[in-house]
Amino acid sequence: MKLHGIFPPLATPFDHNGDIWKVKVQHNVSKLNLTPVGGYVVGGSTGEVVMLTNDEMARAWEWVAEASAPEKILIAGTAAEGVRETLERTKRAAGIGYKVALVRTPAYYKSVVMKPETQMLFFRAVADQSPVPVLIYNFPQVTGIDLSVETIAALAEHPNIIGIKESSGNQEKVQRLALEIKDGFQVLVGQAQTLASALNAGACGGILGFANAAPYAAISIWEAHRTREYAAALDWQKRISRPARLVTAKYSIPGLKHAMDLMGYYGGPPRLPLAPIGPDAKREIEEAFQDIRG
Amino acid sequence: MKLHGIFPPLATPFDHNGDIWKVKVQHNVSKLNLTPVGGYVVGGSTGEVVMLTNDEMARAWEWVAEASAPEKILIAGTAAEGVRETLERTKRAAGIGYKVALVRTPAYYKSVVMKPETQMLFFRAVADQSPVPVLIYNFPQVTGIDLSVETIAALAEHPNIIGIKESSGNQEKVQRLALEIKDGFQVLVGQAQTLASALNAGACGGILGFANAAPYAAISIWEAHRTREYAAALDWQKRISRPARLVTAKYSIPGLKHAMDLMGYYGGPPRLPLAPIGPDAKREIEEAFQDIRG
Amino acid sequence: MKLHGIFPPLATPFDHNGDIWKVKVQHNVSKLNLTPVGGYVVGGSTGEVVMLTNDEMARAWEWVAEASAPEKILIAGTAAEGVRETLERTKRAAGIGYKVALVRTPAYYKSVVMKPETQMLFFRAVADQSPVPVLIYNFPQVTGIDLSVETIAALAEHPNIIGIKESSGNQEKVQRLALEIKDGFQVLVGQAQTLASALNAGACGGILGFANAAPYAAISIWEAHRTREYAAALDWQKRISRPARLVTAKYSIPGLKHAMDLMGYYGGPPRLPLAPIGPDAKREIEEAFQDIRG
Amino acid sequence: MKLHGIFPPLATPFDHNGDIWKVKVQHNVSKLNLTPVGGYVVGGSTGEVVMLTNDEMARAWEWVAEASAPEKILIAGTAAEGVRETLERTKRAAGIGYKVALVRTPAYYKSVVMKPETQMLFFRAVADQSPVPVLIYNFPQVTGIDLSVETIAALAEHPNIIGIKESSGNQEKVQRLALEIKDGFQVLVGQAQTLASALNAGACGGILGFANAAPYAAISIWEAHRTREYAAALDWQKRISRPARLVTAKYSIPGLKHAMDLMGYYGGPPRLPLAPIGPDAKREIEEAFQDIRG
Repeated sequence: MKLHGIFPPLATPFDHNGDIWKVKVQHNVSKLNLTPVGGYVVGGSTGEVVMLTNDEMARAWEWVAEASAPEKILIAGTAAEGVRETLERTKRAAGIGYKVALVRTPAYYKSVVMKPETQMLFFRAVADQSPVPVLIYNFPQVTGIDLSVETIAALAEHPNIIGIKESSGNQEKVQRLALEIKDGFQVLVGQAQTLASALNAGACGGILGFANAAPYAAISIWEAHRTREYAAALDWQKRISRPARLVTAKYSIPGLKHAMDLMGYYGGPPRLPLAPIGPDAKREIEEAFQDIRG
Repeated sequence: MKLHGIFPPLATPFDHNGDIWKVKVQHNVSKLNLTPVGGYVVGGSTGEVVMLTNDEMARAWEWVAEASAPEKILIAGTAAEGVRETLERTKRAAGIGYKVALVRTPAYYKSVVMKPETQMLFFRAVADQSPVPVLIYNFPQVTGIDLSVETIAALAEHPNIIGIKESSGNQEKVQRLALEIKDGFQVLVGQAQTLASALNAGACGGILGFANAAPYAAISIWEAHRTREYAAALDWQKRISRPARLVTAKYSIPGLKHAMDLMGYYGGPPRLPLAPIGPDAKREIEEAFQDIRG
Repeated sequence: MKLHGIFPPLATPFDHNGDIWKVKVQHNVSKLNLTPVGGYVVGGSTGEVVMLTNDEMARAWEWVAEASAPEKILIAGTAAEGVRETLERTKRAAGIGYKVALVRTPAYYKSVVMKPETQMLFFRAVADQSPVPVLIYNFPQVTGIDLSVETIAALAEHPNIIGIKESSGNQEKVQRLALEIKDGFQVLVGQAQTLASALNAGACGGILGFANAAPYAAISIWEAHRTREYAAALDWQKRISRPARLVTAKYSIPGLKHAMDLMGYYGGPPRLPLAPIGPDAKREIEEAFQDIRG
Repeated sequence: MKLHGIFPPLATPFDHNGDIWKVKVQHNVSKLNLTPVGGYVVGGSTGEVVMLTNDEMARAWEWVAEASAPEKILIAGTAAEGVRETLERTKRAAGIGYKVALVRTPAYYKSVVMKPETQMLFFRAVADQSPVPVLIYNFPQVTGIDLSVETIAALAEHPNIIGIKESSGNQEKVQRLALEIKDGFQVLVGQAQTLASALNAGACGGILGFANAAPYAAISIWEAHRTREYAAALDWQKRISRPARLVTAKYSIPGLKHAMDLMGYYGGPPRLPLAPIGPDAKREIEEAFQDIRG
C-alpha cells in the first residue's frame, strides 16, 4: 500500500442545523477527484472527528466512499483511546472499503500512556487485529504524547504497521525516521508550510489540511520534488507559507473552511465550540489566497 | 443542589471478555450505599469513560441508577469535545435520573480552545441547554487546558453552572476559587492526598478515585474537617497520602482496581492499553492499604 | 542549624543610578531586626541575584551581615550553574559569616541536568566541599527542573545537606517530603499564599518574598500554627492571599518593591529589564495592602 | 556586518585542574583558522559560558582574539539576565576587538520576561548602548522563552540589531523569519542536522557546536547550498545527521569534547556537573565520526 503524494484530510461539511451535509461532502470529493491527490483521509483532526458520533463518522465514511474516484486511496481515521473501540471503528471502516486506518496515539491517561511500552502495547494490539494496515498518527501539540524515533522504529517491525503521519513539525525527527527506519516504512507529514523540506528529508507525502482548499498548490511542491526541481519546490513552498499557516495554526478549521468557500469547495460552519471567524480574519485569508491556485 | 462531601467517581467493572459487568457494577454501588458518600460520579476519568462507547456509557448510567440508594446524588460525566454531543449525552443521562452533568473543558483543538472565550462559549452553550446543572471539570494534567480563576468566575455567573471539579492539585487556586467567586459556587477537588488542605482552603468536597477503594478513609477527613477537628483531619490525611498516591499518580486505574479487589469491591481488569499491574506493584499497594479502613 | 520560621529573601535596594544602595540595604535590615523573622536570605530570586555581579553580591552580603541582629540566621544564595563557581561563591559568603548556602538546581544544560544523577553529582560535589550546610533550592517554574522526592531523599542522606526550599507550590510534594524523608531534614516553602497548608503538611518555615513588605503578616501564620491555633492560621492565610499573590505571581519584584515602599521599607526601582509597575498596578497593590499589618 | 557561513561556537578547553587552558584554546583556533569558517563565537552555550566567571570569560575572549586569523569575524556571547551586566560584558568584549554581541533572551523572571514587551525593552536597551551590533539569541529549549516572529520583526527595526541565532529547530519559523522580516536581517541557525533545510528556508548560516569537531563537514553543506547543488547539500546533511545529534542532543558538550579529541582538536573534560561520557558513548561517537571529514 503506497501512500505517496498528497492526501487531504477531508473537512466535514455541516449544514446550518449542524448536521453533516451529504450533498456537500460529495461535492467536495467530486471536485477533488479531478486533481491528482493520492486519496482521502476521512476522520482526521481537520474533519472535526472528535465532534462526531460513531454513527455520523460511519455515514461520512460511506458518503466519501460512494463519491470517490476508484484510484484514490481511502484512509479512515479510526482512533479511540482504547484498543477495543479503535478496532470496532477500524472494522467498520474496512467494511465500507477503507484501505488504511490512521490511528492516533492514546493520550488521556498521561501517567500510563507516556510510557513507550503502553504505546507499543496499544499499537501492536490494534495492528494484530486490524483488517487493514495501520498508519500511526503522532501529533504531540494536541495529545501531549510524542513517540520517540526508537519507539516508532520498534513499531515499524510489525507487518501491519506501514508508516506514520508525523505532525510534530520536527524536521530533524522526520529526517531520522527516514534514515533510521527500515526501507518501506512510509513517513507522511502534516504541515504544508514545510512540505518541501520534509520531502527533502525523506518523507513520501503529506496529509495536509491546506489541501482541502488548495490541492494543486500542495501537489505542485510534491511534483517539483519528484522531478528533482528543488528550486521550484522551494519557491512553491514559500508562496504557500502564509496561506497555509493562516488556515492551520492561526485560524484552525474555521479559517480553513472559509478558504474552502473561497476556492470553490464547501466549507461552511464548524461545530461549536469552534466558531466561524470574524471579518478581519476573513479578509486576511482572502488576501493570502488571492494568488493561490486551487 | 448541594455537592458537599465525598463522591467516588466510579470505576467501571469489566469481565474477562472486556464487557461491562452489570452484576459487579451493582455490587460496588450496593456496598458504597452503606457508606456516607454523598453520591456517585458515573462517567469520569476513573471510570475509563474514554474507553466506552456512548451506548455502554448509557447502560452504566442505568445500572448505577437502579442500584443507588435514593439519597445519593447522581452525577454523570457527559463531556465530549463538541457542544452538540455533550448535550446529547447530558440529555440522555438526565433522562435516566442524573441530577448533575460533569463537563470537562474541550481540549483537542489547542490553538482555538486555549482561548478563554472559546471555553466560555462552550460552557455557556452547554449550560444554556442542559436540563440539569453543570459542574465544570478542569484537569490540566490531562487536557493541557487550565481555566483561569477569572474565566471560572465569569462562568460562575451562569445560573446553570453550579461549581467546579478542580483537579489541578493547585492549592493556591482552590483558595482563590473559594475566596474570589460568589457564595454558593461549589469547589470540589480531585486529589485525596491534599483533601484536608483543600477543605481548609474552602473546597466543599472531593470527587476522589481513591474513595472507590477506601470510602471511609476519605470521609474521615471530610468529617473531621466538618466538626473542626483540624488536627484529626491532618492526621488522617497523612495516613492516606501514600495509598492514595499509589492508586492515582503512580499506578493509575490499574492500581486502583487492584486496591478495590483488596478492599471488598470488584476492581478487575482495565481496558487496553491500560493493563493490569505486576506483582511488585500489587505488593506495594497491598502493604500500603493494610491499615486503611475501607 | 534550625531553620524554623519566616526568612525574608531580601530584595536588593538600588539607587536611581542603578547601584546597590548600602544605606537602604541596612535600613531594611535594621527594621526587620525588630521583627521575629528567623533570619535573612541574601542572594535569592527576590534579591534580583541574577542581575548582580559577583562583587556586588559580596558587597550585599557584607552590608547585610553588618546590619543584622546577632540572633538572625544568615543564609546566602550562592548558586551558579557549575560546581566550581558555586563553591567559590559559597566560600566567599561563609567567610563573611553566612551560616547556610542556598543552592539552586543547575538548569542550563537541559539534556544533561534533567537526569537525576547529574543533579545528585552537583549537590554532592558542592556539599562535600562547602564550609557551611547546604539548603537545596527547587524552583521548577523558573528552572524547568523539578527534583523528585526520591532524588531529594537520596540527597538528604548527605550530612551537609540540611533541607530544601521547595518553591514548586506543589502541596502534595511538600507533604511527601515531610513524611518520607528522614527526621531533621527541613522543608521550607516559597509561597506565602499557601503557607498554612504547607505548615500543616509538615514544612518548618518559609522563605517568602512577601515578608520583605509584611513580615508580621507572614509570622502571624507561623505563630498561629506553632501554637496549634489552626483556625487562626487559616484566617490569616486567607487575608494575605491576594496581597501576597500581587507581589509575586502577578507583579513580581517590581510589585513587591512598591509594597515595600508602602510599608516603610525601601523598595525603589528594579534593574532592567524588570521595570517599575504602572499606576493601575500600584493602586491595586495599595488597596490590597491597606489592612495588612507590616 | 555580514554573518554568512559557518561559525563554530568555541568549546572551552579546561586542563585537569579545571582551569581554562590557554595553549589549547589557541591550538584549536589556529587549526580552525585553516578552514573557511566565517568566524568564532566565544561565550556561547557550547563554550560552557554559564560555568565561567566574568574574568575567565574575558581571558578567553583575549586568547581567541590573539590567535584568530584576521579575516575571521569575532562574535562574543555577552548575555546576562540584566541590561546593565549585559552591557558591561559587551563593552569589555568590544574593547578586546569583538565585532558582534550575541545576546540571549532574559529568562529567569518568567512571569515578567514571558511578556513580549519585556523582551523588547531588554533588547532595545542593550542595542541602544552597545558599541557593536547585536545578534539576538533565541533558544527556547533552554530558556523556556520563545520570541515570536512578530516580536523579532519589531526588534529587527532597530539599526543596531542585525540578526538572530534561532536555535529552536523550528523549520517553519526560520522560513517565516526569512520571508517576513526586512531584507538584510540575518538568520543563523543552531542545529547542524537541519542546516540544509534551514538554508533552503532562507537562513544565511549556522552557529553550530558540531563545527568544533567537524568544520569541513558543516561547511560542505553551506558551500553546496551556495552553489545551488541542492542534492549534494541534502546528501551531506544526511551523512552528518547522526554524528551531529550525538554531540548535541544526545551527549551534549561532553560528547562534543570527545569528538574534538578524535578529530585533532582539544576537547578535554567539561566542568562539573557536566561529566565526561562513558566508554559506550565514546564508542558510539567514534563509530559515527569515522567517515566524517574534520
